[in-house]
Amino acid sequence: MSVRVFVRVDAAPRPGAVLSLDHDEHHYLARVRRVRPGQAVEALDLRGQRWQAAVEAIDAKQASIRLVRSMPTRPAPPSVAIIGLPSPAAALDAVARCCELGVEDVLLVRCELSQVGPPSDARTTRVLRASQRQCGRPREPRVQSLSLAEALAFRGEIPLFVGERDADVKEPRLDHARSGFRVAVGPEGGFSVREQAQLRDGGAIGLQLGPWTLRTEVAIVAACSRLAAAAERRPHVACGPKPTSA
Amino acid sequence: MSVRVFVRVDAAPRPGAVLSLDHDEHHYLARVRRVRPGQAVEALDLRGQRWQAAVEAIDAKQASIRLVRSMPTRPAPPSVAIIGLPSPAAALDAVARCCELGVEDVLLVRCELSQVGPPSDARTTRVLRASQRQCGRPREPRVQSLSLAEALAFRGEIPLFVGERDADVKEPRLDHARSGFRVAVGPEGGFSVREQAQLRDGGAIGLQLGPWTLRTEVAIVAACSRLAAAAERRPHVACGPKPTSA
Repeated sequence: MSVRVFVRVDAAPRPGAVLSLDHDEHHYLARVRRVRPGQAVEALDLRGQRWQAAVEAIDAKQASIRLVRSMPTRPAPPSVAIIGLPSPAAALDAVARCCELGVEDVLLVRCELSQVGPPSDARTTRVLRASQRQCGRPREPRVQSLSLAEALAFRGEIPLFVGERDADVKEPRLDHARSGFRVAVGPEGGFSVREQAQLRDGGAIGLQLGPWTLRTEVAIVAACSRLAAAAERRPHVACGPKPTSA
Repeated sequence: MSVRVFVRVDAAPRPGAVLSLDHDEHHYLARVRRVRPGQAVEALDLRGQRWQAAVEAIDAKQASIRLVRSMPTRPAPPSVAIIGLPSPAAALDAVARCCELGVEDVLLVRCELSQVGPPSDARTTRVLRASQRQCGRPREPRVQSLSLAEALAFRGEIPLFVGERDADVKEPRLDHARSGFRVAVGPEGGFSVREQAQLRDGGAIGLQLGPWTLRTEVAIVAACSRLAAAAERRPHVACGPKPTSA
């Protein structure tokens, strides 16, 4: 498994640059992974680039790495996960899964059936860092707490789906996700009748997630995977004028 | 949220039947959910049928329910999850997620990079029961431990996919899942070179699961969700007897 390390950079770094690591990253390399000088590692620069790198020097007090070459990242369609807050542990699990699946924006919404508020920023950041270390994503998703009305207005130009157990999904509906997607999943117990009406008024398309009731943190993975598969079915092209046909 | 209770039945029960509950189910209704006589519950009979039911009688020592009507279950395409064994906790998590997503057969495979063997049958059964209680699935998936060669020979007539980070997936490849799917995901660290060759020899189709590395228990959810979406795109015709409706 790759050893991944975070580096802070001010400007865009170049191959060959030697970067010293901060305390946490030194601890991770020296104590947790016990790497040696020369060992290959993967560096995630917090500007959003991944690098093949090698340990330049490491001792009990400090460590540095040398960047070798930047690694390509695949473009992904815009994606927004709207999560009705379940228990704090489940909310953090859902945020980590969204990070690993490449979701750009995670909106945590306190719903009528939510028992508690959002996890603290400090816990969220810790969970995101662990998730990035595991999955290799250099830039974390943006995570915000919003009301349902605010969440439904967020990036309103992108098609909106809502995960439901019994929705009757036809192929063309998933195809709406080709240019990106927003998807909402309810808290434990689901969206209330009033919230469901709000979602319908927001133009949400029912997205069936299988025959059985899914936990919030499983439903968001199932929903994002289905929609991402639909979005990948054609190369993502940035908005621009269409070629005119002859 | 629905209160769900398991009932053991010898023959196919009929609406109106009054069934007494075993010790565990009595404990769950009386102590955990504190239900009252007359309260609506959902009954999962271990022959594979779901029922709307009501509590007939409950006291400190015993409980019984009356079946009201059977609930329809949607037919699902045949589906097999082949899971390279990660840590025991992750393996149990993966098994529960497969249950919730409707997978029929779960094959646990000890791979070259697996650190440990499969979880015990007792733990697996406990996790499956909790998962069924949560998701409402009346019949659990069949879970077996097999070698990779045995797993690849299992239901060999169904298309085989393998979850990969960098596979280049085109639409027609997902469409192979329309009649059902088998899908393999590796343990922590992935399949070895030799195992990858075995999968290729077995005809496995690479299935891209997103831009970043996924944990085994997340990869299996992402893979099954993508393939189930492809399978649902055309009505599945059941091969066996249809569930009876009341």
